[in-house]
Amino acid sequence: MSEPSDRTYHVDGELVSADAAAVHVEDRGFAYGDAAVETLRAYGGEVFRWSDHAERLASTCEALALDHGLDDAELKRRVDETLAANDLSDAGVRLSITRGRQPGGFGPELPLDPQAEVDPTVVVVVWPAARGGVGSAPAHAGPATLQTTKTRKVSDRAVPADARTHNYLNRILARLELRVTGADEALICGPDGHVAEGAAATLFFADGTGLKTPALDGPVLPGVVREVVIEIADAEGIPVEEGTYTPSDVREADEVFLTNTRWELRPVRTVDGIDVGSDGEGVAGPVTTLVSRLFDRRVEERHYDGERC
Amino acid sequence: MSEPSDRTYHVDGELVSADAAAVHVEDRGFAYGDAAVETLRAYGGEVFRWSDHAERLASTCEALALDHGLDDAELKRRVDETLAANDLSDAGVRLSITRGRQPGGFGPELPLDPQAEVDPTVVVVVWPAARGGVGSAPAHAGPATLQTTKTRKVSDRAVPADARTHNYLNRILARLELRVTGADEALICGPDGHVAEGAAATLFFADGTGLKTPALDGPVLPGVVREVVIEIADAEGIPVEEGTYTPSDVREADEVFLTNTRWELRPVRTVDGIDVGSDGEGVAGPVTTLVSRLFDRRVEERHYDGERC
Repeated sequence: MSEPSDRTYHVDGELVSADAAAVHVEDRGFAYGDAAVETLRAYGGEVFRWSDHAERLASTCEALALDHGLDDAELKRRVDETLAANDLSDAGVRLSITRGRQPGGFGPELPLDPQAEVDPTVVVVVWPAARGGVGSAPAHAGPATLQTTKTRKVSDRAVPADARTHNYLNRILARLELRVTGADEALICGPDGHVAEGAAATLFFADGTGLKTPALDGPVLPGVVREVVIEIADAEGIPVEEGTYTPSDVREADEVFLTNTRWELRPVRTVDGIDVGSDGEGVAGPVTTLVSRLFDRRVEERHYDGERC
Repeated sequence: MSEPSDRTYHVDGELVSADAAAVHVEDRGFAYGDAAVETLRAYGGEVFRWSDHAERLASTCEALALDHGLDDAELKRRVDETLAANDLSDAGVRLSITRGRQPGGFGPELPLDPQAEVDPTVVVVVWPAARGGVGSAPAHAGPATLQTTKTRKVSDRAVPADARTHNYLNRILARLELRVTGADEALICGPDGHVAEGAAATLFFADGTGLKTPALDGPVLPGVVREVVIEIADAEGIPVEEGTYTPSDVREADEVFLTNTRWELRPVRTVDGIDVGSDGEGVAGPVTTLVSRLFDRRVEERHYDGERC
């Protein structure tokens, strides 16, 4: 795999060597984390579910009143241009739009107040990924161990949960708690103690009745892979319940898995030290395996012309 | 006043022209707002209450498990060097320490997990300010209008309130609500509906019995000027109560003022459209005026050798 220093990124409208990819210290993206972000996956040269990501990005920008003035096609053009410049067809992509640098820096003006006139900074960072689709190797380090954290999610009344921004500290603090036990991912509850999501993943679990996942009226990010999994389950006639659950519901499940753009589906081996689903060798349970295969098949059909189907 | 572009900032151990002051897009300070920050005020060439700021910075870094390995003296040296390079003795200063760039960028590793080994990025930005002390002009645009926001503070269980970080979106969202009414500052309540603080300031109010300010067991930043105001009130025999208050307690107060390093003390003219304290010409009430004068006197004595005392 190439090192970051061999790569080319896209910053503020220009392709630049990754080593030189920088933003000004007065850019609000640096100063305040005042930026919208999407993590994308390209398979076979095409971004997976671009329009879903573009829609969520637009909704984040609306929540932040960040009127960047760029249309979806222009954003996609910059992503595609960056992939091409790196000769990458299977890749991870991080697309950020900051509110840019505003006149006066931190000077006598009140710096916190965003000015309505925005000269945004758009940043595209890419990294190589393996081929996806049918028969692909897992895009994660094996079944995860999950641990419920003391850190709770930020309430929707403080920062809207469906905004995907550069304010990651809540998630980072949850991950830091894992240092003690060595777990892979946090199981973070909302302010009311119900299960919300992982630090960087959506939670699904299965019991005898079907699939369950925390509903979006809680502090839960509307994940793109979450949506795809629900579509797949619907198509297979697997009932999906979006509801309100406790950590003990998850610990008692037959199977648990996580989803995000990077991992796709990642089976969970233990929750708070309790075995769930995947067996001692970390083999995923039947529902996880089925949905995971159907996910790969969709990717194969849509991004590799169904070559291996 | 000089424009930012005339200035010199301090980035990652070096003095650089402000125009060239940048951080890498993979720096965690940019990518995640994963950084500790302090806003400082220099009067007559010396940072006001440096040790209080250094202590709070250390406590932020502890909350973030950000072990940067730099001692207070080295951080102060960089601040002083930046002030000297700009020939500034009266100035505002923003000192940030990020967790830096970690190996692998956003590559196959999980980027959210901070690695224990940290190569921090230290950024010092400065801007000119007026002379402080006795007889100085107000360091703000006149008495503030305050407005209670729908945006609530981030709960202490999500991100500790005493950590001063680059995750500013909660405060920015509160300020964005003010666009409708044109108010100057947000009055933000905690998750339980009690008054916490402004978007960028500590709240004080006075009634017949003395000064009141939200207690630090709520989601309240332990402001340095807040502490100085309490010291001044103690020395003057003005009772100070740190407690739990509702927005209506503030609206019914005789006087209300805000404090922060930049504004020092800023009187409040209205809260949610209701007159409080300062008269029609925006003249501050007696307690605000007294504490404000005593604040100026402290600055005069300690930073300008009491020249105007």
